[in-house]
Amino acid sequence: MKAGTIYGVGLGPGDPDLMSVRADRLLRSARHVAFFRKPGREGQARRIVQGMLAPNAIEFAMEYPVTTEIPLSDPRYNRLLSAFYADCTVRLLDLSTAGQDVVVLCEGDPFFYGSFMHLYTRLQNTASVQVVPAITGMSGAWTATGTPITWGDDVLTVLMGTLPEAELTRRMGDTDALVVMKIGRNIDKIRRALRATGLYDRAWLVEYAAMPNQTVTPLPQAGDRVAPYFSIIVVHGQGRRP
Amino acid sequence: MKAGTIYGVGLGPGDPDLMSVRADRLLRSARHVAFFRKPGREGQARRIVQGMLAPNAIEFAMEYPVTTEIPLSDPRYNRLLSAFYADCTVRLLDLSTAGQDVVVLCEGDPFFYGSFMHLYTRLQNTASVQVVPAITGMSGAWTATGTPITWGDDVLTVLMGTLPEAELTRRMGDTDALVVMKIGRNIDKIRRALRATGLYDRAWLVEYAAMPNQTVTPLPQAGDRVAPYFSIIVVHGQGRRP
Repeated sequence: MKAGTIYGVGLGPGDPDLMSVRADRLLRSARHVAFFRKPGREGQARRIVQGMLAPNAIEFAMEYPVTTEIPLSDPRYNRLLSAFYADCTVRLLDLSTAGQDVVVLCEGDPFFYGSFMHLYTRLQNTASVQVVPAITGMSGAWTATGTPITWGDDVLTVLMGTLPEAELTRRMGDTDALVVMKIGRNIDKIRRALRATGLYDRAWLVEYAAMPNQTVTPLPQAGDRVAPYFSIIVVHGQGRRP
Repeated sequence: MKAGTIYGVGLGPGDPDLMSVRADRLLRSARHVAFFRKPGREGQARRIVQGMLAPNAIEFAMEYPVTTEIPLSDPRYNRLLSAFYADCTVRLLDLSTAGQDVVVLCEGDPFFYGSFMHLYTRLQNTASVQVVPAITGMSGAWTATGTPITWGDDVLTVLMGTLPEAELTRRMGDTDALVVMKIGRNIDKIRRALRATGLYDRAWLVEYAAMPNQTVTPLPQAGDRVAPYFSIIVVHGQGRRP
């Protein structure tokens, strides 16, 4: 029997109309569909494809054993996640060995800060794996602001809000265009770093880019609320423009 | 009469199957299609949509008055390009005023180092303009390498090969993951900067990502040839991976 292929399919920022033609086709014809989610939740990736899957699609919800309950620095965090990814890998390999194709849903672009990468590296030498790239969440965010992100020779820096404040400040002070991801409870630290580098007044907060509940707000007008973890902050470059 | 809409439609890295569902629909139904190209060439954007346009589509080739013949630093360069963009803007506005929708083809993602941005800023206050984001060329490139670009808290830096060597070297030496665009005749300078920062042996050269003639080569094996201007060099991040 011919082994099945495991597809890591990028869903893009959230609007099904912004998925690639290839992703759209793979999703609608998939017999096995796997996706990550927190226990007890529907899951963002699954929500994006609502109404697209075939009625007979068999779903495999891969439920994280831990997300933010244990700090990243705790060795248990890595141990638990590593065992979880290994379990998921076994399940996907079993399907592939049985000749079944599986579509794994990936928010954003699979190779850009994605969870699928942890399955990919465990599968790539033993299974047929294909990755379908997608529009990144940050592309969805800068498009939503209605202003281009980079011009001419602009340097773009992409930072995770989870970095230490000093590191954020140092790097924000040395770039033309900026994207900050993984916001959530890091937002106060990010705000301080943006203020310290003079970028605060030019920063935009995009929540739920390309989704029905999208918001686009100049950061100084966003108040003190905690933004969702998957919000994105952008500061546009000011480079050469004839 | 209702004014028409000007759509800046991102085509993604080059494979029509990787265009968004929205881009695919807009292209196939477009009555007016505009695109940039060098005089005497078919144009890369036009080539990507070959076979997709309606038989009655009216094409408007916007031919650059200058590309690399005049150095960027020469004031004539900016003057010529500025007049060219203004001319294109007038043509597009005329169509819009006459009630016609126009699709402007954009390689990659329109707001990410794209030429369409120069039309967009001239049109945004006087016409109805909509931007359709797309998979960036760099996403196409890192997907082609078969290795994820960023993990965990990795910092991603995107640099143009047109930057001075000292600037390239300084920034390459201070990032986790790296993308270099606009390669062409800058490749020797880029190679020296990569060598100086110890990244050379981990760098990949991707030519024509997601196109039929795509090549993916470890940079040290690419020889001394001049890569196409729109090649992309990537160095993958090594961040946290449970």
